Amino acid sequence: MCKTAGSCQGCLHYVFDYETPKTLVIPNIRVGCVFRFTQLLVVLYVVGYVCVVQKAYQDTDSVISTVTTKVKGFAFTNTSDIGPHLWDVAEYVIPPQGDHSFFVLTNMVVTPEQTQSRCPELPNPSTTCVDDCDCIEGHSDPRGNGIQTGLCENYSTTVKTCEVLSWCPHEVDTKLPERALMSAAENFTVLIKNSITYPKFNVHRRNILPHINSSYLKMCEFNRTSDPDCPIFRLKHIVAEAGEDFQDMAVKGGILGILIDWSCDLDWWAKKCFPKYSFRRLDNKHPVNNVAPGYNFRFAKYYKKPDGEETRMLIKAFGIRFNVIVFGTGGKFAIVPTIVNLGAALSFLSLLPAVADWFMLTCMKKRDLYSKQKTSYLVEDTESMPMGTTYGTK
Amino acid sequence: MCKTAGSCQGCLHYVFDYETPKTLVIPNIRVGCVFRFTQLLVVLYVVGYVCVVQKAYQDTDSVISTVTTKVKGFAFTNTSDIGPHLWDVAEYVIPPQGDHSFFVLTNMVVTPEQTQSRCPELPNPSTTCVDDCDCIEGHSDPRGNGIQTGLCENYSTTVKTCEVLSWCPHEVDTKLPERALMSAAENFTVLIKNSITYPKFNVHRRNILPHINSSYLKMCEFNRTSDPDCPIFRLKHIVAEAGEDFQDMAVKGGILGILIDWSCDLDWWAKKCFPKYSFRRLDNKHPVNNVAPGYNFRFAKYYKKPDGEETRMLIKAFGIRFNVIVFGTGGKFAIVPTIVNLGAALSFLSLLPAVADWFMLTCMKKRDLYSKQKTSYLVEDTESMPMGTTYGTK
Amino acid sequence: MCKTAGSCQGCLHYVFDYETPKTLVIPNIRVGCVFRFTQLLVVLYVVGYVCVVQKAYQDTDSVISTVTTKVKGFAFTNTSDIGPHLWDVAEYVIPPQGDHSFFVLTNMVVTPEQTQSRCPELPNPSTTCVDDCDCIEGHSDPRGNGIQTGLCENYSTTVKTCEVLSWCPHEVDTKLPERALMSAAENFTVLIKNSITYPKFNVHRRNILPHINSSYLKMCEFNRTSDPDCPIFRLKHIVAEAGEDFQDMAVKGGILGILIDWSCDLDWWAKKCFPKYSFRRLDNKHPVNNVAPGYNFRFAKYYKKPDGEETRMLIKAFGIRFNVIVFGTGGKFAIVPTIVNLGAALSFLSLLPAVADWFMLTCMKKRDLYSKQKTSYLVEDTESMPMGTTYGTK
Repeated sequence: MCKTAGSCQGCLHYVFDYETPKTLVIPNIRVGCVFRFTQLLVVLYVVGYVCVVQKAYQDTDSVISTVTTKVKGFAFTNTSDIGPHLWDVAEYVIPPQGDHSFFVLTNMVVTPEQTQSRCPELPNPSTTCVDDCDCIEGHSDPRGNGIQTGLCENYSTTVKTCEVLSWCPHEVDTKLPERALMSAAENFTVLIKNSITYPKFNVHRRNILPHINSSYLKMCEFNRTSDPDCPIFRLKHIVAEAGEDFQDMAVKGGILGILIDWSCDLDWWAKKCFPKYSFRRLDNKHPVNNVAPGYNFRFAKYYKKPDGEETRMLIKAFGIRFNVIVFGTGGKFAIVPTIVNLGAALSFLSLLPAVADWFMLTCMKKRDLYSKQKTSYLVEDTESMPMGTTYGTK
Repeated sequence: MCKTAGSCQGCLHYVFDYETPKTLVIPNIRVGCVFRFTQLLVVLYVVGYVCVVQKAYQDTDSVISTVTTKVKGFAFTNTSDIGPHLWDVAEYVIPPQGDHSFFVLTNMVVTPEQTQSRCPELPNPSTTCVDDCDCIEGHSDPRGNGIQTGLCENYSTTVKTCEVLSWCPHEVDTKLPERALMSAAENFTVLIKNSITYPKFNVHRRNILPHINSSYLKMCEFNRTSDPDCPIFRLKHIVAEAGEDFQDMAVKGGILGILIDWSCDLDWWAKKCFPKYSFRRLDNKHPVNNVAPGYNFRFAKYYKKPDGEETRMLIKAFGIRFNVIVFGTGGKFAIVPTIVNLGAALSFLSLLPAVADWFMLTCMKKRDLYSKQKTSYLVEDTESMPMGTTYGTK
Repeated sequence: MCKTAGSCQGCLHYVFDYETPKTLVIPNIRVGCVFRFTQLLVVLYVVGYVCVVQKAYQDTDSVISTVTTKVKGFAFTNTSDIGPHLWDVAEYVIPPQGDHSFFVLTNMVVTPEQTQSRCPELPNPSTTCVDDCDCIEGHSDPRGNGIQTGLCENYSTTVKTCEVLSWCPHEVDTKLPERALMSAAENFTVLIKNSITYPKFNVHRRNILPHINSSYLKMCEFNRTSDPDCPIFRLKHIVAEAGEDFQDMAVKGGILGILIDWSCDLDWWAKKCFPKYSFRRLDNKHPVNNVAPGYNFRFAKYYKKPDGEETRMLIKAFGIRFNVIVFGTGGKFAIVPTIVNLGAALSFLSLLPAVADWFMLTCMKKRDLYSKQKTSYLVEDTESMPMGTTYGTK
């Protein structure tokens, strides 16, 4: 059919001839409706769900964050171990640096005057003895407190236990106060300063919002309804928002998450990027299968006596560890995810004719007529052979 | 039309007959050009932007990192509070462990000999008094320093304030040195050792690069132009690169981010995965609405007097907290993202005929001719009925 | 052809007439096979790889985690510096809080009685002197220990060095014990409590699994085969699993990662979300180009003598820092990634006819017949002109 002169001409034809499918128009409103309706569904999905709800046209970035915390408040205790004592920030916040994770001491077992010396073990089935033969010199029980000296000594008037070399006297941590010693800790406040960065978008924000002034910051206290932007939190309030009771939690300690969600839509109004605070207890309160419930750790203050002997005050500290957890994803319009998501949705659009064809050739009364005019069978070259020829049987 | 014998034959036909669209070739160079040009655009986008710029064919993984830091240097101070004193690493780096976040002490307010005792409050409107009636025993002002004893004592010759039980004497933190005490800290150096892992790709790297030898490491100092691979940083240099003045920042403290970007293309030359250092001040320098600008915290060293009384040296520490922040995304060729992105782009390719058809049937002079030959209308079975039949009116 | 009356009718036609491509059926089993086979490949890829292997139908979220650790055990040492000494948790774990990163002291260089005073420098080429002229008052060598006083003093009977103002006596860290002092540390155990959250899916898990009871937890010890769910780890076992020798590592210290992988398929059986533990040494053991191999830091305990003079015990602590690194991605079925991935794969499906057409028109014997019946050329309106007309030459 192509009667051009040279091969260059043919090549031009090959590149620039436009080959378009021949089509058949079916003027049937039911088939048309099915086709348009499915088209509408796909378009609605793309616009409504992918774009509006899921914001799939956005490129995303994870937040990089810095947190500093500063606790304020003091508490007064009067115990037999250490007498009247005023606790200030330098004492009850551990570690003192004001990092994103800080511990507020609320209860404790104090063992004031420990020295490296010899003393009888705390009594338990493996340490009680009758005479020195029950104690092996140099033996150390992993569940005990030190190296046995081989002697069996009076622990009390009724019980004898093996003597050990250890920090003596031993801590008796069964006498934990049932009401938290520093119950006043519930009124401590903490100032949280949080700066975040979305490095991919070069966006920087901090949780002290631009419209807040210094005088407000000196007086305010976070409250979800009245002061949702104040970065100063009362510990009692944090714990209550997490669904716990402070005094209850203060006895055995626990871990409390202060979650700051910086999920941001950075597209149109970058200033609409605000932190959302939430609070959650991170350890399990009363699980059936817990070892060492609550949160505690031991630390010591070391002193030297005038004679040069080292002595220490061992503190088993119970309290609440506050973890400031900053998370969030920033999204901003970008061409690649837009095209990926649009393209994927549009590929469904190109499947719709198959659906409409199937409906037309299966469910319509005139399907034979449609089929006959839409589909033609290959006609063999010179004579009209039956179609089955290429298969074996004929 | 299908004249085969059995139903199996028919089934074979159904599965293996190939149905291909009939096409019409339009030998018009303008339509062809429009089609080829739009095709070219899509292909260019796929190759150029998706593949080369965005590397959308890669699967990505987030970095897991470990950092150790080691500060070197010492500083000499001579103040009235503590006399001549040489500060070494064990004293001015808090905490001492050399973690990814470390604090270098640069300025301080020292309150040397505090004991638990009674002393008059610092004078301010709520603590000044005329006689004992102004002070309530057991009362504690949240902005004060301790529990009131109910007495009104001379703070100075001119002012009387309520006496409190507290760590006495109180800290007077208004006398912060205007020039940082440890100004020599600017010449401290820090060695940062950073190992990273991309767990998905099982790739491990460290910031001490393979081509660096030990003797170089003993002498070098990071410099963006001359020594970009040296992991030893002079504090002054870090602060200067962040656009700040060290001596200025040292007075009230601050937070400085040492950002290590490990974004890596792990595809062809895995060894091309190098750390990129950058530095940024993370807290706000002089915002209008800041509480407690700078960075400081209080800690104490506890001693015991020969008579057993506990005494402490309270230090309000100002300084620079350095946060080593490691981030980055590793990318490596993977089949799924490749297919997702290619597929999405190709689905645009399958929309191009629609574009070219629209152009052909709308903008070309011979559009009626093209339309007539491309599109045929359904012809009703026996007689040639007008097309409108299926709609209501006729 | 369209003989309708009004424009509204025409508009209805435009919207609801369904335009379907005319097709030609080719009853050739080879072409049909090629087409069906490629279709099968794409479908297999979608089902097998995208859905089953890569779970590309899932939306993903990163894990948020909290870790507490509690080390147990004690060790006995007997050195000339500090005499017989029993080390318990409060002494050898630094920092004591039981955070996700903790350091276990295994070896040390102790300098017991340092005071701020004057003493001769440690001898090295830059500090040795012959007389006072070699020492400059106020000079401080960055690689030295303090501020020179300008005097040249006897360091030993044979060597004279410049006197410095510093914490004296200086630490001599060359006398590091060749066998780790606290070799018993290998039998310490650590309890790791880890709670995780996938905030997007509101899923919370912890590493103490529901089916574990308290009595098991008191006795168990992690073992990959016999006790894979026990959260109590023996330090020796951790180090061994990382492919290292504990005693070897204990001498100079190191960093060990305890990796907890919480990658979870949250789709069908949420309870199938278990932690997978693995262990890896994070610093380089014996690299050729390492500064300060191993892991150590200096800290001090401060005391006051009866006369009020401050004295300290400087400890250069070598040991193993354990970093608990929690990572993982949770996946759950979501409609957007499903559609994106299916859509992208299906767009390949719509490219298959092009492949089959190419095969049919190139490789088949009857390609001319197929081509003639599939493709028709545009026929100019009144007379049958040759096709080349629109191009220049004719």
